[in-house]
Amino acid sequence: MSQTTPRLLRALAGETLERPPIWFMRQAGRSLPEYLELRTRAKDFISFCHDPEMAAEATLQPMRRFPMDAAIVFADILLIPGALGQEVWFEAGEGPRLGPLPDIARMADEVEASTGRLSAIGETLQRVRAELEPERALIGFAGGPWTVATYMIEGRGSHREISRTYAYEHPEALDALLDVLVDATASYLVMQARSGAQALKIFESWAEGLAEDVFERIVIRPHRAIVEKVRAAGVTAPFIGFPRGAGALVEAYAAAVPVQGVGLDTQASAAMGQRLQANGKTIQGALDNLLLRAGGKALDARVETLLAQWNGGPYIFNLGHGVMPDTPIAHIAQVVARVTGQPVKVMETA
Amino acid sequence: MSQTTPRLLRALAGETLERPPIWFMRQAGRSLPEYLELRTRAKDFISFCHDPEMAAEATLQPMRRFPMDAAIVFADILLIPGALGQEVWFEAGEGPRLGPLPDIARMADEVEASTGRLSAIGETLQRVRAELEPERALIGFAGGPWTVATYMIEGRGSHREISRTYAYEHPEALDALLDVLVDATASYLVMQARSGAQALKIFESWAEGLAEDVFERIVIRPHRAIVEKVRAAGVTAPFIGFPRGAGALVEAYAAAVPVQGVGLDTQASAAMGQRLQANGKTIQGALDNLLLRAGGKALDARVETLLAQWNGGPYIFNLGHGVMPDTPIAHIAQVVARVTGQPVKVMETA
Repeated sequence: MSQTTPRLLRALAGETLERPPIWFMRQAGRSLPEYLELRTRAKDFISFCHDPEMAAEATLQPMRRFPMDAAIVFADILLIPGALGQEVWFEAGEGPRLGPLPDIARMADEVEASTGRLSAIGETLQRVRAELEPERALIGFAGGPWTVATYMIEGRGSHREISRTYAYEHPEALDALLDVLVDATASYLVMQARSGAQALKIFESWAEGLAEDVFERIVIRPHRAIVEKVRAAGVTAPFIGFPRGAGALVEAYAAAVPVQGVGLDTQASAAMGQRLQANGKTIQGALDNLLLRAGGKALDARVETLLAQWNGGPYIFNLGHGVMPDTPIAHIAQVVARVTGQPVKVMETA
Repeated sequence: MSQTTPRLLRALAGETLERPPIWFMRQAGRSLPEYLELRTRAKDFISFCHDPEMAAEATLQPMRRFPMDAAIVFADILLIPGALGQEVWFEAGEGPRLGPLPDIARMADEVEASTGRLSAIGETLQRVRAELEPERALIGFAGGPWTVATYMIEGRGSHREISRTYAYEHPEALDALLDVLVDATASYLVMQARSGAQALKIFESWAEGLAEDVFERIVIRPHRAIVEKVRAAGVTAPFIGFPRGAGALVEAYAAAVPVQGVGLDTQASAAMGQRLQANGKTIQGALDNLLLRAGGKALDARVETLLAQWNGGPYIFNLGHGVMPDTPIAHIAQVVARVTGQPVKVMETA
């Protein structure tokens, strides 16, 4: 690959770089004062995500502050249920709420139309790509089908006990719902790639606590189907799969899903990451977001450890989970400066 | 070992048995109507645990219903904070509540006395051992120091965000607290072994979400210290360590902590369990407690899978988490019958 290829894409192509690319999950959003200001201009969070001007601005805000190697489109994993006809809204301070689960067969008929209803996210990507320097990559994303299904079934964030029980008691209904989500997600990601997304990430935020056979059925199989459908549409952008909380099952995931990158969460072991690299995967992660918030010398020490243990192979520096809203900007700057070798100016206000 | 040695102890000594021993975490307690009846006789849960007659009865109740190969003493992981001088109580329907964290140095002076304050648990063990058939083993237990510390620091069950941040911001205070808990726990387990416990289990219920270096410091190191202290007191009973949610870090745990058995949670992979067996550990787990509650053919199929994947080495059949309170007794009977090959009569009331 050419030296002007974005560092993130070089890493995802399997290159080991002198220093890894860096970006942070939730680098845009509530940890930035300029985001909080911007957010007051939209009537609600879903409207904000569907406004290309505001969403593009939110996507770019962290790129102005920090020399991040990638931007990730500002959007939400629950836009797909909305586009499939389930009501979705956010209760202030409490998180998402969803109306009753629509008839699954009826949603299946909405798959094609659903991507059209998400065209604003394509426009956000186009706007960001037009402004972003060519050496910085743009990432598109969607939620993993199982994670999205847990919200659709339970109507809110939860301990997933109801959805996990649903997986045992209504396996055919769950499979049908996952099939709808696979189709809608693949179509949505194809649209994102055609709108400027250079890498595609699947956030399976609730992969934890699943038995191996269930994990194979409701995480691995749908992820593989998404990647295959996106490839069948002619899209070649690399994938990052992030089965958060999957523990030792991450290796089965990596072996079975044709993703280029595997996101590792906070508790990933050094040895497991190295095995994934040896097996041809680029790994991404896994700094503790609570340590980023806490800061100090322990933060510097942990950054050095992560670089030492994983930068001998293809590696993308990131957190194991998203930036916490009350994370000091100086701590983000501290890590980015250390990883990139570039000093980062800290402005507490934009 | 002799054929009259309890099956659980043969497995923990490394024997591969024609069928594994079986017991269930939380086999005693709220899933049994006779427990719910018994529980009404005590004024509160802590008093119940400190009453040897009632606690012995609760321990034995599931042994009368099911041909379980082991009983586990009815007690709670929060008895130790109580014995060290922190107030502990249970809010009905909400779980444990703890008063302010006492001065750590003062608690250190209470370690020896704390075991004396837990003598009722020793008496419970003696009563159970006297009644239990010799071929059925009796297990003693304590909470893992980190898990107990999270309750002591946060005052209740939680997402552990406060304690995990405490681990970064106050490492010396946390280490001092863990040291007190290691000493109190080792002394308590020695007392349990001398009172009739034939195997000792450490429940590290909140091992999830920890970075590898933190896990090494606050889980592995304290567990190793407990085992070493118990051995130094001359106790030879085998240990089962259960770092629940530790994911891929379970292997580092197993390599570093001299336990004979390793408890695996619901998401353990077949391959990881087999590697642990190949490395000389007996494994225990990992049926999904939600599948036990859901029942049906999927439950039978999963039991067969677990037996097929793990009974080629030393294995103890168990859940990945405790029995849910609303689990039908018939489902427990179904699994126990399948694993033991003995028909189990289902009585919905005792």
